[in-house]
Amino acid sequence: MDFRQLPLARANRLINHGPVVLVSSCHHGRSNVMTAAWAMPASHTPPMVAVAVGPSRYTHELIMDSREFVVNIPGIALLDAVWCCGTNKGRGMDKFAHCGLTPVAGKRVAAPLVKECIGAIECRLADHPSAGDHSILIGEVLAVWVRPDLFDERLLVEKEDARTLHHLGGRDFFPSGAVIRKPE
Amino acid sequence: MDFRQLPLARANRLINHGPVVLVSSCHHGRSNVMTAAWAMPASHTPPMVAVAVGPSRYTHELIMDSREFVVNIPGIALLDAVWCCGTNKGRGMDKFAHCGLTPVAGKRVAAPLVKECIGAIECRLADHPSAGDHSILIGEVLAVWVRPDLFDERLLVEKEDARTLHHLGGRDFFPSGAVIRKPE
Repeated sequence: MDFRQLPLARANRLINHGPVVLVSSCHHGRSNVMTAAWAMPASHTPPMVAVAVGPSRYTHELIMDSREFVVNIPGIALLDAVWCCGTNKGRGMDKFAHCGLTPVAGKRVAAPLVKECIGAIECRLADHPSAGDHSILIGEVLAVWVRPDLFDERLLVEKEDARTLHHLGGRDFFPSGAVIRKPE
Repeated sequence: MDFRQLPLARANRLINHGPVVLVSSCHHGRSNVMTAAWAMPASHTPPMVAVAVGPSRYTHELIMDSREFVVNIPGIALLDAVWCCGTNKGRGMDKFAHCGLTPVAGKRVAAPLVKECIGAIECRLADHPSAGDHSILIGEVLAVWVRPDLFDERLLVEKEDARTLHHLGGRDFFPSGAVIRKPE
């Protein structure tokens, strides 16, 4: 499925509702992808996002070295891949291949997009403050991609392919579902 | 509805799935409550959470002065109050009264809990790094509260009263719903 670019200011609309994401990274030809539930938008102007990653993670090393990463948004059809990327270590493994995901080239960073995802946010690392046992990786948004049939000012979570995964804990997730619109 | 205390390590299970939260604050008797969609857990040990708040917000001022805040988790029945707290400014207004919410005393901080919510996380401000036009307020978890009928190792979002709100953008939200369990 091909992606279309969105304005940078729309990055927040891909993760505003709290989905699990896949963080991809690449440094000197070594790439990785990990599952993260701890992610959020962080700024409108400039557009920024934040994701919490443990300093011992291979992804953390690749991002600190390359100063770049991509936040990919998987749909519910990728539950197995999300679990796979969250429970395997990337060091010494091609986690894309192992978990059945396809890396495709982005536009602004070397880290790959995940082809099977709903959308992706290319980021340059802007800061990495510590918070207890995690680093908060703050990314300035450089490019935003989405499947054009699944987005119209917001993610169209009414469509099966646009339903995102939300992690309650352990093995339990729920999918985004029927939209409630606050009346005028 | 009365809250029960949870172990501090369970704080992340109240917001791991990306719900909208209500951030309450208090300094020298002045209190406020604001809606925030940009919140996430940030650390297991010690337990910490992060919420992005604009520096011009009254809530930002109260938290910087008091070094404390509470992250409250509203259910879908509070949609009107969530909207009210997100679209009104707290300076010079009793936003609790205006939005139909009841402040109740917590245990560790002066900032009130929101009585009508599913749960609440009392926090001490640990750090406040900037990210573009927001501050990321990192809170060390001091106490965790939940409605006992709505939590068993995780939020029981199968129950109507435990369904949380997830903000897609504009006036559009969706409620947490049917759980998907990743098979063993």
